[in-house]
Amino acid sequence: MLSRIDLSKKISKKEYKTRFSQLQIKIGKIQREAKTLGVPVVIVFEGWDAAGKGTLINNLILPLDPRGFNVHPISKPNEEESMRPFLWRFWTKTPENGRIAIFDRSWYGKVLVEFIDDKSDSLELERCYQDIRSFERQLSDGGNVMIKFFLHITKKEQKRRFKKLRSNPALSWKVTKEDKKHHKQYDKYLILTERMIEETDTDYAPWTVIESHDRRFAVIKMFETVIHFLEEKINAVKSKKSGTQDSTTKEAVTSSLEDSSLNCSILDKIDLNIYIEKEKYKKSLKKYQKKIRDLEHQIYIHRIPVIITYEGSDAAGKGGNIRRLTQNMDPRGYEVIPIAAPIPYEKRHHYLWRFWNHLPKAGHITIFDRTWYGRVLVERIEGFCTRIEWKRAYREINEMEKHLTEFGTIVIKFWLQIDKDEQLRRFKEREKIEYKNWKITEEDWRNREKWDEYREAVDEMLLRTGTTNAPWTIIESNSKYYARIKVLKTVCERIEIALKKR
Amino acid sequence: MLSRIDLSKKISKKEYKTRFSQLQIKIGKIQREAKTLGVPVVIVFEGWDAAGKGTLINNLILPLDPRGFNVHPISKPNEEESMRPFLWRFWTKTPENGRIAIFDRSWYGKVLVEFIDDKSDSLELERCYQDIRSFERQLSDGGNVMIKFFLHITKKEQKRRFKKLRSNPALSWKVTKEDKKHHKQYDKYLILTERMIEETDTDYAPWTVIESHDRRFAVIKMFETVIHFLEEKINAVKSKKSGTQDSTTKEAVTSSLEDSSLNCSILDKIDLNIYIEKEKYKKSLKKYQKKIRDLEHQIYIHRIPVIITYEGSDAAGKGGNIRRLTQNMDPRGYEVIPIAAPIPYEKRHHYLWRFWNHLPKAGHITIFDRTWYGRVLVERIEGFCTRIEWKRAYREINEMEKHLTEFGTIVIKFWLQIDKDEQLRRFKEREKIEYKNWKITEEDWRNREKWDEYREAVDEMLLRTGTTNAPWTIIESNSKYYARIKVLKTVCERIEIALKKR
Repeated sequence: MLSRIDLSKKISKKEYKTRFSQLQIKIGKIQREAKTLGVPVVIVFEGWDAAGKGTLINNLILPLDPRGFNVHPISKPNEEESMRPFLWRFWTKTPENGRIAIFDRSWYGKVLVEFIDDKSDSLELERCYQDIRSFERQLSDGGNVMIKFFLHITKKEQKRRFKKLRSNPALSWKVTKEDKKHHKQYDKYLILTERMIEETDTDYAPWTVIESHDRRFAVIKMFETVIHFLEEKINAVKSKKSGTQDSTTKEAVTSSLEDSSLNCSILDKIDLNIYIEKEKYKKSLKKYQKKIRDLEHQIYIHRIPVIITYEGSDAAGKGGNIRRLTQNMDPRGYEVIPIAAPIPYEKRHHYLWRFWNHLPKAGHITIFDRTWYGRVLVERIEGFCTRIEWKRAYREINEMEKHLTEFGTIVIKFWLQIDKDEQLRRFKEREKIEYKNWKITEEDWRNREKWDEYREAVDEMLLRTGTTNAPWTIIESNSKYYARIKVLKTVCERIEIALKKR
Repeated sequence: MLSRIDLSKKISKKEYKTRFSQLQIKIGKIQREAKTLGVPVVIVFEGWDAAGKGTLINNLILPLDPRGFNVHPISKPNEEESMRPFLWRFWTKTPENGRIAIFDRSWYGKVLVEFIDDKSDSLELERCYQDIRSFERQLSDGGNVMIKFFLHITKKEQKRRFKKLRSNPALSWKVTKEDKKHHKQYDKYLILTERMIEETDTDYAPWTVIESHDRRFAVIKMFETVIHFLEEKINAVKSKKSGTQDSTTKEAVTSSLEDSSLNCSILDKIDLNIYIEKEKYKKSLKKYQKKIRDLEHQIYIHRIPVIITYEGSDAAGKGGNIRRLTQNMDPRGYEVIPIAAPIPYEKRHHYLWRFWNHLPKAGHITIFDRTWYGRVLVERIEGFCTRIEWKRAYREINEMEKHLTEFGTIVIKFWLQIDKDEQLRRFKEREKIEYKNWKITEEDWRNREKWDEYREAVDEMLLRTGTTNAPWTIIESNSKYYARIKVLKTVCERIEIALKKR
């Protein structure tokens, strides 16, 4: 997930100046209010070495009343600390009511650097995640606002920054041996960080990833996030005191930032103009269709279940894509399940129930044409479920997919994306050509009007459900040829990897 | 915890008849109401072989509208089922809105018989608990009422029942080879069952233990519990529909049964008249005081941290007991922390914060004279915290103690119990004897008036926080001599066991 976030986001000097001075005034005011109401606040800064944690923390505390916060720099436990359970040194540093505790690195060291250096095992890791979740839930239930930042930069950018630091005699001491070691282990840490975020991204203590290539962007996003969470809490406390309970404050789950340009995006990063020539397409199609049939038999022999899911923009070409995928496959080994709006009988059950009913047997493939992700797409946007329900669904879906993959299921998820112009072209074509006419309805045109809303929902879905065990593959689908080959290729690769692990 | 529940509870034939016919009418009415409101219900029956699951289920369904429920007998997964993730066969059996799904054994087989027979490892077990918690939370969030019964009988009673069945030619087939095997493994299963209940006793799907020696008691308790949970849900749904939200329905956590004689009790089972002669006391005191000093050095050498906690009725003799425990100990190795009502500074923190501050270093002993259990005792009864808060505290405390014991801490928890007459005698003595006068206050007399309330709170505390990793030891304290020796002996034994595991 992290590696696919668009890191090119920037804020201009001019915009920065204006916003920064406004935010400084705002945060000072909010800090005073939180103090008066006795709200304790915990802010965690995690992220890559040289990603700019120090800078962000400096920026944050500048406008704050120094009598109202503490900064806790955290490194490996000292002797005194390692003689107590690992949460001890963090519990004792939790803020009293009305104060802000800022952690420069935190308890997450236990599941990152300490995990790697101490060579802990999987059982210990799972237990640590559970301890951390309990700790954060207890603080949240106790009234704390929990804000957690992960500052993200690429390995390349990290290298550039280290180089720059080393070239400056006054700063070169900042790059330690440890830093160099960690830089080499970047990819190892990336996987561990992804898991850490998956396991501890909860409604009571959600993670916010900060794209940190551009310092100005990072500072503004950090401020907006802190203000957002504090305002949310302050409103909740106030309305609780006054006895009024409006529906928004009752939700435990947090919403994304109002200024959506600050939210993380994966879609912003992809290049939809990528394509493939007809000749090459034909050749590749043949090659992979042959391959997939062989692999289909392999998974049958090894009794591996496979789930392939299709989601995508309207007219992105899901149907044609599925046809090319299955064209040469043995029909006894796979099944295509088209998902439409639930019928009355299905509506009387839990929304996940109808999908559980269609799980493949070990050794078989189930292809879902649209899926449980409808909950966080169409149901979210059309209001078919409440805000609390679709917010909750991210976790529920991740849990379901984790259960599947722990059983050994290969879960391959495709998002087929086209751009707005291409969609218009295809819609018009569908209206013109008689045999494609059935494919286009009033609803499609209505959905199109909500393009931006869908885009936001898709980005949040890709971010929050793109897990290490069941990752998303985005299919750039302006070129149908390209899209079909990429799907076939991905399916083959994922199956081959799983077979190798046997 | 299970092994200490009072199983002697009975209901007379006469009382049974009256209550049973009333309950039958009531449950029929409630089922219809739940159906109208579209409330789905999941009822799980787990318990020892021959504990009477079949009988209870038969009793339950008799008064129900047969069109409104399904009974699912669950044994080991068949071939078709084992080719899917283990929750598949349960998800597909979840009830539709307005229906009741009754499980005769359930997904808990995975962490009991299947765990033992398949020789799974700890990591798998932890994952299963997590899968089960997610599953039940998802159902509960989806509107399901979750009721889980564990039918408890002793090994001896199980043997008696098997014998009786075998002696009857018409019923002897009911005792299978498997049953005999399980009977032999009773103690192994007991430990696993305790852990299962600890790990999956949640606010959204709590366990109810049914004392099953007396069939009549079991039937009445089962009915009262089902009715209790259904009524709670029905009221919540109704007030949500009508837009009114009274404070009780907003709580997710469930309360105990109104008829408190049906609730599980550990205190009911203990014999307070147990005592020890002065001569023997003196000898034992010397012996164990010598031993504890040696052990104190041992744990220092092995760097094992120890926490000893004292809770008990007023005038139960905590102070004198602690003095005898520490009399001969090396003062550099232990610390006594007396806990009174929190001072203003402490009140500005999370209620657990002040205890975290006093955790012993590895190799040291901390003795708490009163503890974090104040949350579910005095704070509960005096209303110093909300109902939601003390209900939540059971889980928070269990999580804290788990964190401690996973670090290697030995957690020894004492509850000192005296009876009401003995308390009166000691109160009066304190008033009469001048040098004991400071020990008795108005507050003690006020607390005494709440004797029954405290008793209920203590019983719930013992049940819900008596975990395998941090069990309670109840100290029968009418005889101070006996109490002191039992404490000393327990501390020595627990430390010796831990040392042996090194």
